Amino acid sequence: MCSPAIIEQVKKRISRRNALAALGGAGVAVSTGCLPATSVKNTAPDKKSVPPKNSRWGSKPVEQVSFSRVVDLSHTLHPDFPAWFVAGKKMTTRGKRTFVPPAVVEVKPVFEWEHDKVNLNQITYWEHVGTHMDAPAHFSEGSTVDEIPVEDLVLPLVVIDVKERAAKDPLALLNIEDIRSWEDEHGPIPERACVAMNSGWAKYVEKPKFKSLDTKGKHRQPAFHIDAVEYLMEECEVVALGVDTFSFDNQHSPGSDVHYRWLGDERWGIENLNNLDDIPTKGATIVVGQPSIKGGSGGPNRTMALV
Amino acid sequence: MCSPAIIEQVKKRISRRNALAALGGAGVAVSTGCLPATSVKNTAPDKKSVPPKNSRWGSKPVEQVSFSRVVDLSHTLHPDFPAWFVAGKKMTTRGKRTFVPPAVVEVKPVFEWEHDKVNLNQITYWEHVGTHMDAPAHFSEGSTVDEIPVEDLVLPLVVIDVKERAAKDPLALLNIEDIRSWEDEHGPIPERACVAMNSGWAKYVEKPKFKSLDTKGKHRQPAFHIDAVEYLMEECEVVALGVDTFSFDNQHSPGSDVHYRWLGDERWGIENLNNLDDIPTKGATIVVGQPSIKGGSGGPNRTMALV
Repeated sequence: MCSPAIIEQVKKRISRRNALAALGGAGVAVSTGCLPATSVKNTAPDKKSVPPKNSRWGSKPVEQVSFSRVVDLSHTLHPDFPAWFVAGKKMTTRGKRTFVPPAVVEVKPVFEWEHDKVNLNQITYWEHVGTHMDAPAHFSEGSTVDEIPVEDLVLPLVVIDVKERAAKDPLALLNIEDIRSWEDEHGPIPERACVAMNSGWAKYVEKPKFKSLDTKGKHRQPAFHIDAVEYLMEECEVVALGVDTFSFDNQHSPGSDVHYRWLGDERWGIENLNNLDDIPTKGATIVVGQPSIKGGSGGPNRTMALV
Repeated sequence: MCSPAIIEQVKKRISRRNALAALGGAGVAVSTGCLPATSVKNTAPDKKSVPPKNSRWGSKPVEQVSFSRVVDLSHTLHPDFPAWFVAGKKMTTRGKRTFVPPAVVEVKPVFEWEHDKVNLNQITYWEHVGTHMDAPAHFSEGSTVDEIPVEDLVLPLVVIDVKERAAKDPLALLNIEDIRSWEDEHGPIPERACVAMNSGWAKYVEKPKFKSLDTKGKHRQPAFHIDAVEYLMEECEVVALGVDTFSFDNQHSPGSDVHYRWLGDERWGIENLNNLDDIPTKGATIVVGQPSIKGGSGGPNRTMALV
């Protein structure tokens, strides 16, 4: 399922970590926290257990988890839900091809109770609307949604709060210092985590503030700093990124650096998270109910937190 | 969110149970197991806790749950996945309206890596394909997918095995005796459960056997007996039904009795479950990652079991 290029990337990543481990945990990142490089051996497949199909992470799929509360981390998707495109407004891709996006989602009644005593709709959407996954394939030749094993959709959830800065600046970035501060208070980022940014943006979802258009009509929203993403890639066993905005990138990375770097490294992400204020910063488990549509590059899902 | 008609149905159901409770647990169903009628008081909203929004079940949303394994209960959806319709073949609804169904799912590339250095597809489907939810609204004027609170998507899972009978008869039915036998061995059906039929059908998903067409071209597959469904409705606090086939009904209930009765009682179901052999008959927790699309009558999702 993985192309040779992807396998090569993983080998490089592992050998990079092993080199760090050989240095006895040298380097600021290792000494300040995240997954210590010396524990990388734990991520190698355990021959006594069966690693999940296609898993890039090899270690025991899920640690013992307990919960007694479920929190909905998804927004409800509807035709007026804010997206990174505007329905009906021409857009041009990097490849200079032009497209006219459709409605964010079309819910077209087919069978109707009144006539048929059954209800059934035809649903049409461009992937990457609403609360949705970005699979590696969105910005690379990597895995599609159906190639991500279910074990990698249930992860320890870390929520990093940047609300104060975001309230002053719609282009605020979650940076390395935010991660280090979190680690100082809560300890290393857990292995195989999903690291989510809480910028407070979810509450604006039905308001113009969510897009915070600038004078040129470009949307603005908090995002990840590419350095923070590199840090999470190099020094931690982070499987997924999450944001409560509609993009990991903003105008500080107009080339979609975070998307290319993260998804191109065979990791995945989730955008437009909701209700991050309702869960603890550490200790919750994210469950990403991603429909397994063959060849999908991402798409709307139901994401929950088990607390 | 609930219509007066639905609220009235619930009131009737509760008063019926209270009447049974007043009889001191009389009646075969009550005495043989399921949720004892006398424990109905536990399902009334606990004023000390906040009942989930829209919950029809009122009791504490989730009991303490522990797990260390995740099992994928979904099939991957693709254009050739078997459905209750045939793409391109005219069909007539109960209301005498005719339709020509589209492909089971259309995954149409929009942005492509080769040209755009991004992948993105347009997805189109009729709801009720692949592993999917039937919301109450599918066969009633009840709740749509977005109106089911997330707490009601995480439930104790009971798996009842009818494989032996199904192997001999593609129209085998899960009946009351199957439920009673299960209870004799494992105790009462847990409160707020999802009760799933394991007919062994999932392994045929890519084979003609999955549809087992009869001489008239009608499909055949194991399903629930209407009496079993009535039993689960009347005597248990079962929230959801599950089947590893594409319908709760088969030719023994050509009027879709199970769909009308169950969904019309503001309960939901899930069809085309997978991998039921990989989880215990009791003790797993089902998590239904149902995308929350406003107005949806159901649709493809990612269903998992936490074990």
